[in-house]
Amino acid sequence: MTRAELINQIRGKNSFLCVGLDPDMEKIPKHILENSDDAIFEFNKQIIDATAPYCVAYKPNAAFYEAYGINGLKSFEKTIRYLDTTYKNHFIIADSKRGDIGNTSTMYAHAFFKHLHADAVTVAPYMGKDSVEPFLKFKGKWAIVLALTSNIGAADFQFLKSDGVELYKHVLKTVASWGTEENLMFVVGATKANMLTEVRSIVPNHFLLVPGVGAQGGSLDDVCEYGLNKDIGLLINSSRGIIYAGSGLDFAELAAQEAKNIQQQMSKHIN
Amino acid sequence: MTRAELINQIRGKNSFLCVGLDPDMEKIPKHILENSDDAIFEFNKQIIDATAPYCVAYKPNAAFYEAYGINGLKSFEKTIRYLDTTYKNHFIIADSKRGDIGNTSTMYAHAFFKHLHADAVTVAPYMGKDSVEPFLKFKGKWAIVLALTSNIGAADFQFLKSDGVELYKHVLKTVASWGTEENLMFVVGATKANMLTEVRSIVPNHFLLVPGVGAQGGSLDDVCEYGLNKDIGLLINSSRGIIYAGSGLDFAELAAQEAKNIQQQMSKHIN
Repeated sequence: MTRAELINQIRGKNSFLCVGLDPDMEKIPKHILENSDDAIFEFNKQIIDATAPYCVAYKPNAAFYEAYGINGLKSFEKTIRYLDTTYKNHFIIADSKRGDIGNTSTMYAHAFFKHLHADAVTVAPYMGKDSVEPFLKFKGKWAIVLALTSNIGAADFQFLKSDGVELYKHVLKTVASWGTEENLMFVVGATKANMLTEVRSIVPNHFLLVPGVGAQGGSLDDVCEYGLNKDIGLLINSSRGIIYAGSGLDFAELAAQEAKNIQQQMSKHIN
Repeated sequence: MTRAELINQIRGKNSFLCVGLDPDMEKIPKHILENSDDAIFEFNKQIIDATAPYCVAYKPNAAFYEAYGINGLKSFEKTIRYLDTTYKNHFIIADSKRGDIGNTSTMYAHAFFKHLHADAVTVAPYMGKDSVEPFLKFKGKWAIVLALTSNIGAADFQFLKSDGVELYKHVLKTVASWGTEENLMFVVGATKANMLTEVRSIVPNHFLLVPGVGAQGGSLDDVCEYGLNKDIGLLINSSRGIIYAGSGLDFAELAAQEAKNIQQQMSKHIN
Protein backbone atom coordinates (compact mmCIF):
# COMPACT_ATOMS: atom_id res chain seq x y z
CA MET A 1 0.00 0.00 0.00
CA THR A 2 1.38 3.43 -0.93
CA ARG A 3 1.49 6.39 1.40
CA ALA A 4 -1.21 8.17 -0.64
CA GLU A 5 -3.49 5.13 -0.38
CA LEU A 6 -2.93 4.90 3.36
CA ILE A 7 -3.72 8.58 3.85
CA ASN A 8 -6.88 8.13 1.74
CA GLN A 9 -8.03 5.32 3.99
CA ILE A 10 -7.39 7.40 7.08
CA ARG A 11 -9.25 10.43 5.72
CA GLY A 12 -12.11 8.28 4.47
CA LYS A 13 -12.65 6.62 7.85
CA ASN A 14 -11.56 9.40 10.18
CA SER A 15 -9.43 6.79 11.85
CA PHE A 16 -5.75 6.03 12.23
CA LEU A 17 -6.36 3.05 14.47
CA CYS A 18 -4.32 -0.13 14.13
CA VAL A 19 -5.73 -3.21 15.86
CA GLY A 20 -3.05 -5.51 17.27
CA LEU A 21 -3.83 -9.18 16.82
CA ASP A 22 -2.04 -10.87 19.76
CA PRO A 23 -4.00 -14.09 20.26
CA ASP A 24 -3.43 -15.76 23.60
CA MET A 25 -5.00 -19.18 24.17
CA GLU A 26 -5.61 -18.26 27.79
CA LYS A 27 -7.70 -15.26 26.79
CA ILE A 28 -9.57 -16.46 23.72
CA PRO A 29 -13.27 -17.00 24.63
CA LYS A 30 -14.15 -20.56 25.61
CA HIS A 31 -16.84 -21.01 22.99
CA ILE A 32 -14.25 -20.35 20.27
CA LEU A 33 -11.73 -22.75 21.78
CA GLU A 34 -14.38 -25.47 22.04
CA ASN A 35 -15.93 -25.10 18.62
CA SER A 36 -13.10 -24.42 16.22
CA ASP A 37 -10.21 -26.43 14.80
CA ASP A 38 -8.26 -23.22 14.39
CA ALA A 39 -9.30 -21.12 17.37
CA ILE A 40 -6.66 -18.44 16.74
CA PHE A 41 -7.79 -17.78 13.20
CA GLU A 42 -11.47 -17.97 14.12
CA PHE A 43 -10.90 -15.48 16.95
CA ASN A 44 -8.97 -13.14 14.66
CA LYS A 45 -11.54 -13.42 11.88
CA GLN A 46 -14.39 -12.43 14.18
CA ILE A 47 -12.34 -9.56 15.64
CA ILE A 48 -11.41 -8.39 12.14
CA ASP A 49 -14.95 -8.59 10.76
CA ALA A 50 -16.26 -6.63 13.75
CA THR A 51 -13.57 -3.93 13.93
CA ALA A 52 -12.78 -3.37 10.23
CA PRO A 53 -15.05 -0.32 9.86
CA TYR A 54 -13.21 1.52 12.63
CA CYS A 55 -9.56 0.87 11.87
CA VAL A 56 -7.18 1.24 8.94
CA ALA A 57 -4.54 -1.31 9.92
CA TYR A 58 -4.05 -4.68 11.59
CA LYS A 59 -0.87 -5.76 13.31
CA PRO A 60 -0.54 -9.49 13.98
CA ASN A 61 2.33 -10.00 16.44
CA ALA A 62 4.39 -12.95 15.20
CA ALA A 63 5.44 -14.12 18.68
CA PHE A 64 1.88 -14.96 19.66
CA TYR A 65 1.66 -17.35 16.72
CA GLU A 66 5.18 -18.80 16.83
CA ALA A 67 4.54 -19.81 20.44
CA TYR A 68 2.05 -22.39 19.14
CA GLY A 69 4.41 -23.95 16.61
CA ILE A 70 3.42 -24.88 13.08
CA ASN A 71 -0.30 -24.64 13.92
CA GLY A 72 0.21 -21.12 15.23
CA LEU A 73 2.18 -20.19 12.14
CA LYS A 74 -0.60 -21.53 9.94
CA SER A 75 -3.01 -19.27 11.82
CA PHE A 76 -0.61 -16.35 11.28
CA GLU A 77 -0.44 -17.02 7.55
CA LYS A 78 -4.21 -17.57 7.33
CA THR A 79 -4.89 -14.31 9.16
CA ILE A 80 -2.66 -12.31 6.82
CA ARG A 81 -4.15 -14.01 3.76
CA TYR A 82 -7.67 -13.31 5.03
CA LEU A 83 -6.82 -9.63 5.44
CA ASP A 84 -5.04 -9.50 2.08
CA THR A 85 -7.99 -10.98 0.20
CA THR A 86 -11.03 -9.77 2.16
CA TYR A 87 -9.92 -6.39 3.49
CA LYS A 88 -7.66 -5.13 0.73
CA ASN A 89 -7.85 -1.54 1.95
CA HIS A 90 -6.45 -2.33 5.38
CA PHE A 91 -2.73 -1.94 5.97
CA ILE A 92 -1.15 -5.19 7.22
CA ILE A 93 1.79 -4.95 9.62
CA ALA A 94 3.70 -8.14 10.41
CA ASP A 95 5.00 -7.22 13.85
CA SER A 96 8.07 -9.37 14.06
CA LYS A 97 10.99 -7.10 15.01
CA ARG A 98 13.28 -8.75 12.48
CA GLY A 99 16.73 -7.60 11.36
CA ASP A 100 19.93 -9.46 10.46
CA ILE A 101 22.90 -9.25 8.07
CA GLY A 102 21.94 -8.32 4.51
CA ASN A 103 21.48 -11.77 2.95
CA THR A 104 19.39 -12.85 5.94
CA SER A 105 17.22 -9.73 6.06
CA THR A 106 16.58 -10.32 2.35
CA MET A 107 15.17 -13.74 3.24
CA TYR A 108 12.93 -12.18 5.92
CA ALA A 109 11.73 -9.54 3.44
CA HIS A 110 10.80 -12.32 1.01
CA ALA A 111 8.99 -14.19 3.79
CA PHE A 112 6.82 -11.25 4.79
CA PHE A 113 6.34 -9.36 1.52
CA LYS A 114 6.44 -11.94 -1.24
CA HIS A 115 5.23 -15.02 0.56
CA LEU A 116 2.80 -13.48 3.04
CA HIS A 117 1.79 -10.21 1.32
CA ALA A 118 2.13 -8.06 4.42
CA ASP A 119 2.41 -4.33 3.72
CA ALA A 120 4.97 -3.69 6.44
CA VAL A 121 7.38 -5.41 8.81
CA THR A 122 8.71 -4.06 12.10
CA VAL A 123 12.51 -4.05 12.08
CA ALA A 124 15.14 -3.68 14.83
CA PRO A 125 17.87 -1.11 14.01
CA TYR A 126 20.83 -2.45 16.01
CA MET A 127 22.58 -4.13 13.07
CA GLY A 128 22.46 -1.02 10.91
CA LYS A 129 21.93 -0.19 7.25
CA ASP A 130 22.39 -3.52 5.51
CA SER A 131 19.95 -5.11 7.98
CA VAL A 132 17.19 -2.60 7.12
CA GLU A 133 17.72 -1.92 3.41
CA PRO A 134 16.42 -5.27 2.11
CA PHE A 135 12.99 -4.31 3.50
CA LEU A 136 13.02 -1.05 1.50
CA LYS A 137 13.34 -2.60 -1.93
CA PHE A 138 9.74 -3.66 -2.51
CA LYS A 139 7.34 -1.19 -4.12
CA GLY A 140 4.47 -0.25 -1.83
CA LYS A 141 6.05 -2.14 1.11
CA TRP A 142 7.37 -0.65 4.33
CA ALA A 143 9.96 -1.14 7.04
CA ILE A 144 8.78 0.15 10.41
CA VAL A 145 11.97 0.62 12.40
CA LEU A 146 12.13 0.67 16.20
CA ALA A 147 13.20 4.08 17.47
CA LEU A 148 11.67 4.74 20.89
CA THR A 149 9.83 1.76 22.31
CA SER A 150 7.04 1.76 24.87
CA ASN A 151 8.53 -0.67 27.37
CA ILE A 152 10.55 -0.06 30.54
CA GLY A 153 13.68 -1.54 28.94
CA ALA A 154 13.67 1.32 26.42
CA ALA A 155 15.64 3.27 29.01
CA ASP A 156 18.54 0.81 29.00
CA PHE A 157 20.06 1.85 25.67
CA GLN A 158 17.72 4.12 23.72
CA PHE A 159 18.50 7.15 25.89
CA LEU A 160 22.28 6.77 25.93
CA LYS A 161 23.66 10.07 24.68
CA SER A 162 26.31 10.29 22.00
CA ASP A 163 27.51 13.81 21.13
CA GLY A 164 24.77 15.02 23.44
CA VAL A 165 22.05 13.25 21.45
CA GLU A 166 20.09 10.18 22.57
CA LEU A 167 20.52 6.92 20.65
CA TYR A 168 16.87 6.85 19.54
CA LYS A 169 17.38 10.23 17.86
CA HIS A 170 20.50 8.97 16.09
CA VAL A 171 18.39 6.03 14.93
CA LEU A 172 15.63 8.32 13.63
CA LYS A 173 18.03 10.58 11.79
CA THR A 174 20.31 7.91 10.36
CA VAL A 175 17.61 5.42 9.38
CA ALA A 176 15.55 8.20 7.75
CA SER A 177 18.48 8.78 5.38
CA TRP A 178 18.28 5.16 4.14
CA GLY A 179 14.75 5.37 2.78
CA THR A 180 11.89 7.74 2.10
CA GLU A 181 8.58 8.74 3.61
CA GLU A 182 7.09 6.23 1.15
CA ASN A 183 8.80 3.13 2.54
CA LEU A 184 9.89 3.91 6.11
CA MET A 185 7.97 4.44 9.33
CA PHE A 186 9.19 4.46 12.94
CA VAL A 187 7.94 2.88 16.14
CA VAL A 188 7.56 5.55 18.83
CA GLY A 189 6.02 4.47 22.12
CA ALA A 190 2.97 6.33 23.39
CA THR A 191 4.08 6.13 26.98
CA LYS A 192 6.51 8.92 26.13
CA ALA A 193 4.13 11.26 24.32
CA ASN A 194 5.94 14.44 25.34
CA MET A 195 8.99 13.18 23.45
CA LEU A 196 6.95 13.18 20.26
CA THR A 197 7.74 16.87 19.82
CA GLU A 198 11.41 16.00 19.64
CA VAL A 199 10.71 13.06 17.35
CA ARG A 200 8.72 15.32 15.04
CA SER A 201 11.61 17.80 14.89
CA ILE A 202 13.72 15.03 13.32
CA VAL A 203 11.10 13.22 11.19
CA PRO A 204 8.30 15.75 10.61
CA ASN A 205 6.70 13.89 7.71
CA HIS A 206 7.16 10.19 8.39
CA PHE A 207 4.38 8.00 9.64
CA LEU A 208 4.88 6.79 13.20
CA LEU A 209 3.52 3.52 14.53
CA VAL A 210 2.57 4.22 18.13
CA PRO A 211 2.07 1.27 20.47
CA GLY A 212 1.38 1.59 24.14
CA VAL A 213 -2.01 3.34 24.08
CA GLY A 214 -4.38 1.53 26.41
CA ALA A 215 -3.01 -1.46 28.31
CA GLN A 216 0.48 0.05 28.42
CA GLY A 217 -0.78 3.41 29.72
CA GLY A 218 -0.27 5.91 26.88
CA SER A 219 -2.73 8.75 26.29
CA LEU A 220 -4.41 9.12 22.89
CA ASP A 221 -4.92 12.84 23.31
CA ASP A 222 -1.26 13.43 24.14
CA VAL A 223 -0.09 11.40 21.20
CA CYS A 224 -2.36 13.34 18.86
CA GLU A 225 -1.37 16.69 20.29
CA TYR A 226 2.34 16.10 19.78
CA GLY A 227 2.40 13.58 16.95
CA LEU A 228 -0.10 14.53 14.24
CA ASN A 229 1.27 16.12 11.07
CA LYS A 230 -0.34 17.50 7.90
CA ASP A 231 -0.94 13.99 6.53
CA ILE A 232 -2.00 12.64 9.95
CA GLY A 233 1.27 10.68 10.07
CA LEU A 234 0.21 8.36 12.86
CA LEU A 235 -0.94 4.79 13.20
CA ILE A 236 -1.93 4.21 16.80
CA ASN A 237 -2.04 0.62 17.88
CA SER A 238 -4.21 -0.96 20.53
CA SER A 239 -4.09 -4.70 21.07
CA ARG A 240 -5.29 -6.05 24.41
CA GLY A 241 -7.65 -3.12 25.10
CA ILE A 242 -9.67 -4.01 22.01
CA ILE A 243 -9.36 -7.72 21.35
CA TYR A 244 -9.93 -8.73 24.97
CA ALA A 245 -12.62 -6.12 25.71
CA GLY A 246 -14.93 -9.08 26.37
CA SER A 247 -14.56 -12.80 26.89
CA GLY A 248 -18.10 -14.08 26.33
CA LEU A 249 -20.28 -14.71 23.29
CA ASP A 250 -20.34 -10.97 22.61
CA PHE A 251 -16.52 -10.52 22.60
CA ALA A 252 -16.47 -9.32 18.98
CA GLU A 253 -19.21 -6.76 19.56
CA LEU A 254 -17.38 -5.45 22.60
CA ALA A 255 -14.15 -5.27 20.61
CA ALA A 256 -16.00 -3.34 17.90
CA GLN A 257 -17.43 -0.98 20.50
CA GLU A 258 -13.98 -0.32 21.93
CA ALA A 259 -12.51 0.26 18.46
CA LYS A 260 -15.40 2.59 17.67
CA ASN A 261 -14.76 4.57 20.86
CA ILE A 262 -11.16 5.10 19.86
CA GLN A 263 -12.12 5.94 16.28
CA GLN A 264 -14.53 8.58 17.54
CA GLN A 265 -11.83 10.16 19.69
CA MET A 266 -9.51 10.09 16.68
CA SER A 267 -12.18 11.66 14.52
CA LYS A 268 -12.20 14.75 16.76
CA HIS A 269 -8.47 15.16 16.36
CA ILE A 270 -8.61 14.82 12.58
CA ASN A 271 -11.37 17.40 12.09
CA MET B 1 22.52 -27.73 27.94
CA THR B 2 24.51 -26.39 30.87
CA ARG B 3 27.78 -24.52 30.60
CA ALA B 4 29.65 -27.49 32.10
CA GLU B 5 28.12 -29.87 29.57
CA LEU B 6 29.02 -27.55 26.70
CA ILE B 7 32.63 -27.26 27.90
CA ASN B 8 32.77 -31.05 28.20
CA GLN B 9 31.67 -31.45 24.60
CA ILE B 10 34.28 -28.94 23.45
CA ARG B 11 37.10 -30.61 25.38
CA GLY B 12 36.01 -34.05 24.26
CA LYS B 13 36.02 -33.14 20.57
CA ASN B 14 38.75 -30.51 20.55
CA SER B 15 36.29 -28.36 18.66
CA PHE B 16 34.29 -25.23 19.30
CA LEU B 17 32.82 -25.19 15.81
CA CYS B 18 29.19 -24.26 15.20
CA VAL B 19 27.78 -25.17 11.79
CA GLY B 20 25.26 -22.64 10.48
CA LEU B 21 22.32 -24.24 8.70
CA ASP B 22 21.22 -21.58 6.18
CA PRO B 23 19.48 -23.59 3.47
CA ASP B 24 19.02 -21.74 0.20
CA MET B 25 16.98 -23.44 -2.54
CA GLU B 26 19.29 -21.95 -5.14
CA LYS B 27 22.31 -23.63 -3.59
CA ILE B 28 20.95 -27.00 -2.43
CA PRO B 29 22.33 -29.74 -4.74
CA LYS B 30 20.05 -30.67 -7.64
CA HIS B 31 19.83 -34.34 -6.74
CA ILE B 32 18.36 -33.41 -3.35
CA LEU B 33 15.84 -31.00 -4.86
CA GLU B 34 14.74 -33.62 -7.37
CA ASN B 35 14.45 -36.60 -5.04
CA SER B 36 13.03 -35.29 -1.78
CA ASP B 37 9.65 -33.97 -0.66
CA ASP B 38 11.42 -31.90 1.98
CA ALA B 39 14.67 -30.87 0.32
CA ILE B 40 15.63 -28.45 3.09
CA PHE B 41 15.40 -31.06 5.82
CA GLU B 42 17.06 -33.72 3.67
CA PHE B 43 19.93 -31.33 2.90
CA ASN B 44 20.29 -30.41 6.59
CA LYS B 45 20.12 -34.03 7.70
CA GLN B 46 22.93 -35.09 5.38
CA ILE B 47 25.03 -32.07 6.40
CA ILE B 48 24.42 -32.82 10.08
CA ASP B 49 25.18 -36.54 9.80
CA ALA B 50 28.42 -35.76 7.99
CA THR B 51 29.68 -32.88 10.14
CA ALA B 52 28.51 -33.97 13.63
CA PRO B 53 31.87 -35.49 14.65
CA TYR B 54 33.66 -32.18 14.04
CA CYS B 55 31.35 -29.62 15.62
CA VAL B 56 29.65 -29.02 18.95
CA ALA B 57 26.78 -26.80 17.84
CA TYR B 58 24.34 -26.18 15.00
CA LYS B 59 22.74 -22.85 14.23
CA PRO B 60 19.72 -22.96 11.94
CA ASN B 61 19.01 -19.39 10.79
CA ALA B 62 15.23 -18.85 11.00
CA ALA B 63 15.07 -16.43 8.06
CA PHE B 64 16.16 -19.09 5.60
CA TYR B 65 13.19 -21.22 6.62
CA GLU B 66 10.57 -18.48 7.07
CA ALA B 67 11.27 -17.39 3.49
CA TYR B 68 9.64 -20.65 2.33
CA GLY B 69 6.47 -20.23 4.36
CA ILE B 70 4.83 -23.03 6.31
CA ASN B 71 6.83 -25.69 4.47
CA GLY B 72 10.06 -23.92 5.39
CA LEU B 73 8.95 -23.66 9.00
CA LYS B 74 8.15 -27.37 9.05
CA SER B 75 11.71 -28.02 7.85
CA PHE B 76 13.01 -25.70 10.60
CA GLU B 77 11.06 -27.57 13.26
CA LYS B 78 12.03 -30.96 11.81
CA THR B 79 15.71 -29.97 11.78
CA ILE B 80 15.66 -28.90 15.41
CA ARG B 81 13.75 -32.03 16.44
CA TYR B 82 16.21 -34.20 14.54
CA LEU B 83 19.11 -32.57 16.36
CA ASP B 84 17.31 -32.74 19.70
CA THR B 85 16.59 -36.46 19.39
CA THR B 86 19.55 -37.81 17.38
CA TYR B 87 22.41 -35.54 18.43
CA LYS B 88 21.58 -34.80 22.05
CA ASN B 89 25.11 -33.64 22.82
CA HIS B 90 25.09 -30.88 20.22
CA PHE B 91 24.12 -27.38 21.27
CA ILE B 92 21.18 -26.05 19.21
CA ILE B 93 21.05 -22.32 18.50
CA ALA B 94 17.87 -20.93 16.95
CA ASP B 95 19.33 -17.92 15.17
CA SER B 96 16.34 -15.64 15.00
CA LYS B 97 17.43 -12.26 16.45
CA ARG B 98 14.19 -11.93 18.45
CA GLY B 99 13.37 -9.35 21.12
CA ASP B 100 10.20 -7.47 22.03
CA ILE B 101 8.32 -6.14 25.06
CA GLY B 102 8.20 -8.55 28.00
CA ASN B 103 4.95 -10.40 27.31
CA THR B 104 5.95 -10.85 23.67
CA SER B 105 9.50 -12.03 24.39
CA THR B 106 7.94 -14.54 26.77
CA MET B 107 5.95 -15.94 23.85
CA TYR B 108 9.12 -16.17 21.74
CA ALA B 109 10.94 -17.93 24.59
CA HIS B 110 8.13 -20.48 24.76
CA ALA B 111 8.27 -20.95 20.99
CA PHE B 112 11.99 -21.71 20.93
CA PHE B 113 12.61 -23.41 24.27
CA LYS B 114 9.40 -25.22 25.17
CA HIS B 115 7.94 -25.94 21.78
CA LEU B 116 11.12 -26.42 19.74
CA HIS B 117 13.66 -27.51 22.39
CA ALA B 118 16.43 -25.25 21.14
CA ASP B 119 19.23 -24.65 23.67
CA ALA B 120 19.70 -21.00 22.77
CA VAL B 121 18.10 -18.11 20.89
CA THR B 122 19.88 -15.08 19.46
CA VAL B 123 18.33 -11.88 20.84
CA ALA B 124 18.57 -8.21 19.80
CA PRO B 125 19.32 -5.83 22.70
CA TYR B 126 17.72 -2.56 21.50
CA MET B 127 14.54 -2.90 23.60
CA GLY B 128 16.44 -3.49 26.85
CA LYS B 129 16.06 -5.63 29.94
CA ASP B 130 12.44 -6.76 29.78
CA SER B 131 12.97 -7.87 26.18
CA VAL B 132 15.90 -10.14 27.13
CA GLU B 133 14.92 -11.43 30.58
CA PRO B 134 12.17 -13.84 29.47
CA PHE B 135 14.86 -15.83 27.65
CA LEU B 136 16.88 -16.19 30.86
CA LYS B 137 14.21 -17.97 32.87
CA PHE B 138 14.59 -21.49 31.52
CA LYS B 139 17.06 -23.83 33.18
CA GLY B 140 19.84 -24.92 30.84
CA LYS B 141 18.67 -22.49 28.13
CA TRP B 142 20.53 -19.46 26.81
CA ALA B 143 20.02 -16.01 25.36
CA ILE B 144 22.79 -15.06 22.94
CA VAL B 145 22.61 -11.28 22.75
CA LEU B 146 23.93 -9.21 19.83
CA ALA B 147 26.82 -7.02 20.93
CA LEU B 148 29.21 -6.46 18.03
CA THR B 149 27.95 -7.86 14.75
CA SER B 150 30.00 -8.91 11.73
CA ASN B 151 28.24 -6.86 9.06
CA ILE B 152 29.07 -3.44 7.60
CA GLY B 153 25.99 -1.91 9.23
CA ALA B 154 27.50 -2.65 12.66
CA ALA B 155 29.27 0.70 12.31
CA ASP B 156 26.02 2.66 12.11
CA PHE B 157 25.10 2.47 15.80
CA GLN B 158 27.27 -0.07 17.65
CA PHE B 159 30.27 2.29 17.74
CA LEU B 160 28.43 5.41 18.88
CA LYS B 161 30.19 6.57 22.01
CA SER B 162 28.36 7.49 25.18
CA ASP B 163 30.52 8.72 28.06
CA GLY B 164 33.48 7.81 25.89
CA VAL B 165 32.38 4.18 25.59
CA GLU B 166 30.98 2.52 22.46
CA LEU B 167 27.37 1.30 22.47
CA TYR B 168 28.40 -2.35 22.01
CA LYS B 169 30.45 -2.12 25.22
CA HIS B 170 27.49 -0.63 27.08
CA VAL B 171 25.46 -3.55 25.77
CA LEU B 172 28.04 -6.09 26.96
CA LYS B 173 28.32 -4.57 30.41
CA THR B 174 24.63 -3.88 31.00
CA VAL B 175 23.28 -7.13 29.56
CA ALA B 176 25.88 -9.13 31.50
CA SER B 177 24.33 -7.76 34.70
CA TRP B 178 20.92 -9.26 33.79
CA GLY B 179 22.05 -12.86 33.71
CA THR B 180 24.96 -15.15 34.40
CA GLU B 181 27.68 -17.00 32.56
CA GLU B 182 25.30 -19.96 32.69
CA ASN B 183 22.48 -18.43 30.64
CA LEU B 184 23.97 -15.57 28.61
CA MET B 185 26.33 -15.46 25.65
CA PHE B 186 27.15 -12.62 23.27
CA VAL B 187 27.46 -12.35 19.50
CA VAL B 188 30.82 -10.82 18.59
CA GLY B 189 31.71 -10.64 14.89
CA ALA B 190 34.96 -12.21 13.75
CA THR B 191 35.63 -9.50 11.22
CA LYS B 192 36.69 -7.36 14.17
CA ALA B 193 38.98 -9.84 15.91
CA ASN B 194 41.28 -7.18 17.36
CA MET B 195 38.33 -5.81 19.31
CA LEU B 196 38.01 -9.13 21.09
CA THR B 197 40.64 -7.97 23.55
CA GLU B 198 38.36 -5.14 24.59
CA VAL B 199 35.35 -7.44 24.66
CA ARG B 200 37.24 -9.86 26.91
CA SER B 201 38.09 -7.02 29.30
CA ILE B 202 34.34 -6.57 29.90
CA VAL B 203 33.14 -10.20 29.74
CA PRO B 204 36.19 -12.36 30.47
CA ASN B 205 34.24 -15.51 31.24
CA HIS B 206 31.17 -15.50 29.01
CA PHE B 207 30.90 -17.65 25.93
CA LEU B 208 30.95 -15.66 22.69
CA LEU B 209 29.22 -16.77 19.52
CA VAL B 210 31.47 -15.61 16.71
CA PRO B 211 30.03 -15.42 13.19
CA GLY B 212 31.89 -14.10 10.19
CA VAL B 213 34.71 -16.64 9.93
CA GLY B 214 34.98 -17.81 6.33
CA ALA B 215 32.58 -16.26 3.81
CA GLN B 216 32.47 -12.99 5.74
CA GLY B 217 36.28 -12.74 5.97
CA GLY B 218 37.16 -13.27 9.63
CA SER B 219 40.33 -15.11 10.66
CA LEU B 220 40.13 -18.15 12.93
CA ASP B 221 43.64 -17.63 14.30
CA ASP B 222 42.94 -14.02 15.23
CA VAL B 223 39.69 -14.93 16.96
CA CYS B 224 41.42 -17.64 18.96
CA GLU B 225 44.36 -15.43 19.88
CA TYR B 226 42.17 -12.69 21.32
CA GLY B 227 39.01 -14.55 22.28
CA LEU B 228 39.86 -17.84 24.01
CA ASN B 229 39.52 -17.99 27.78
CA LYS B 230 40.22 -20.66 30.40
CA ASP B 231 37.00 -22.52 29.50
CA ILE B 232 37.52 -21.96 25.75
CA GLY B 233 34.59 -19.53 25.85
CA LEU B 234 34.06 -19.46 22.09
CA LEU B 235 31.62 -20.93 19.62
CA ILE B 236 32.82 -20.07 16.15
CA ASN B 237 30.22 -20.33 13.44
CA SER B 238 30.71 -21.10 9.79
CA SER B 239 27.71 -21.45 7.50
CA ARG B 240 28.23 -21.03 3.77
CA GLY B 241 31.89 -22.09 3.86
CA ILE B 242 30.88 -25.52 5.14
CA ILE B 243 27.40 -26.32 3.89
CA TYR B 244 28.07 -25.17 0.33
CA ALA B 245 31.62 -26.55 0.11
CA GLY B 246 30.29 -28.74 -2.70
CA SER B 247 27.20 -28.90 -4.87
CA GLY B 248 27.36 -32.40 -6.32
CA LEU B 249 26.62 -35.89 -5.04
CA ASP B 250 29.56 -35.56 -2.65
CA PHE B 251 28.38 -32.29 -1.04
CA ALA B 252 28.09 -33.81 2.43
CA GLU B 253 31.58 -35.33 2.30
CA LEU B 254 33.01 -32.00 1.19
CA ALA B 255 31.15 -30.26 4.01
CA ALA B 256 32.57 -32.80 6.46
CA GLN B 257 36.07 -32.23 5.09
CA GLU B 258 35.71 -28.47 5.52
CA ALA B 259 34.37 -28.91 9.07
CA LYS B 260 37.23 -31.28 9.85
CA ASN B 261 39.78 -28.74 8.56
CA ILE B 262 38.41 -26.11 10.90
CA GLN B 263 38.22 -28.57 13.80
CA GLN B 264 41.89 -29.46 13.27
CA GLN B 265 42.89 -25.80 13.35
CA MET B 266 40.82 -25.37 16.51
CA SER B 267 42.44 -28.40 18.04
CA LYS B 268 45.85 -26.70 17.82
CA HIS B 269 44.55 -23.69 19.68
CA ILE B 270 42.98 -25.77 22.43
CA ASN B 271 46.08 -27.85 23.10
